Amino acid sequence: MTIKTKNCQPGHFYAVGVGPGAPDLITLRAAGLIESADTVIVPRSELAGESLALLTIRDLIDEQEVIEHVYPMKRDSSRTRSCWAEVAAEVAARVSAGLAVVQVTIGDPMVYSTSSYLLESLVDLLPAECIHVVPGISAFQATASVLGEPLTLQEDRLNIMPATDMDAVARALECCETLVLYKVGPRLRQLGALLESRNLLDRARLACYVEQQGREAIFRNFRDALADDSHGYMSTVVVRLGRRSWEQTPSMGKVV
Amino acid sequence: MTIKTKNCQPGHFYAVGVGPGAPDLITLRAAGLIESADTVIVPRSELAGESLALLTIRDLIDEQEVIEHVYPMKRDSSRTRSCWAEVAAEVAARVSAGLAVVQVTIGDPMVYSTSSYLLESLVDLLPAECIHVVPGISAFQATASVLGEPLTLQEDRLNIMPATDMDAVARALECCETLVLYKVGPRLRQLGALLESRNLLDRARLACYVEQQGREAIFRNFRDALADDSHGYMSTVVVRLGRRSWEQTPSMGKVV
Repeated sequence: MTIKTKNCQPGHFYAVGVGPGAPDLITLRAAGLIESADTVIVPRSELAGESLALLTIRDLIDEQEVIEHVYPMKRDSSRTRSCWAEVAAEVAARVSAGLAVVQVTIGDPMVYSTSSYLLESLVDLLPAECIHVVPGISAFQATASVLGEPLTLQEDRLNIMPATDMDAVARALECCETLVLYKVGPRLRQLGALLESRNLLDRARLACYVEQQGREAIFRNFRDALADDSHGYMSTVVVRLGRRSWEQTPSMGKVV
Repeated sequence: MTIKTKNCQPGHFYAVGVGPGAPDLITLRAAGLIESADTVIVPRSELAGESLALLTIRDLIDEQEVIEHVYPMKRDSSRTRSCWAEVAAEVAARVSAGLAVVQVTIGDPMVYSTSSYLLESLVDLLPAECIHVVPGISAFQATASVLGEPLTLQEDRLNIMPATDMDAVARALECCETLVLYKVGPRLRQLGALLESRNLLDRARLACYVEQQGREAIFRNFRDALADDSHGYMSTVVVRLGRRSWEQTPSMGKVV
């Protein structure tokens, strides 16, 4: 590989996205930073036996200090924030002592990620110029690639949201051409009923654990997915509702 | 780097996203495929002097055949599709002869990308198992990382669309917590007026040519951006409208 990667700077912090789980979907920048870090913070959900982020980057770990941080999975903002504030204090102490600290996160650090809580706290503890974020491939992108079906073209609108509140999902179906739903697992049948009532079952796909070796399950036929409701937390649904072409849309100026 | 990357298989085609422009935001998988390809198809807009995708991957090019394909920038679906159908025929001829062909594209191949047109045509010319797609970092992700501002947390809804039709933009402001607008360039002032009328100027950011060396311009203050309307085609606006927390949203089952 002839592309130069950046090393960490001493006394800096990096929130680094490592993509959906396949080690080769890490960016060159992320790999270079992880390899040159003094300390790597690895999040693990309290329900997981092992950290998916650590599994993804294990071939990049050599002599770095690895701190596994177990975070709560409860829908409790104040508990979540206080938990990440503790990690932030640990990070700030190391960074202030001149160490380079990387926090890795599955997916992208700016899209439904634990990194956001850590960054919120770090902003008060470190100078802004010592805080960096590196994007990563998000599960919806990996899902679209595995399916080989474009998410958006021309004037299409893409809507991404958790599938927690079916009323909100129903409203979203009215205002985009492609809807991506995360965290569908326990609500798969409710979602199936909603899609069926709108005659949209044929337009929906489900991907579970996409790009996670040995666990990936892809359902191009949503009815097959509905037959088994054991699909886990890391599931992504893509509903391709329609297309909004250039010709259908008023152009408000020269498109250059 | 100790992570193994995949080589191309002979007689296969790969649509490969290379991210926003910085060579080190390429994934390891994309780099391995580009390096091992027989032929690399590089798109260039008819208005650009050089291909941004080629600039991004130039350090990965050695003895591969490079075909630069100039594509139209007009909002004309049938001209665009017939242009890409020609490329598809060229690709299919090479792949059928046993060559490994990669098409590179800036950003992600499934998000507003020229790859989508090529894939549409290739589906009729090659067996499905010989067509592969590799995701790439999209400009909105690079923008959020450079800004250091999370796009979504908890129950937030993210909406991504081109800024072509201001009525559609106005409607989108009502149904998400974060709005990402692409292709804002020539409509920047119209957008500024809309945001000002909703008292949202302080919540908007503009990034031009993000992660493109020497060209990147970031406006955390949208009013500064409005002072100069020369911002180009590759511009991304992020509007952070609000937050939708776990506590505000009905939970429709156990979140695991």
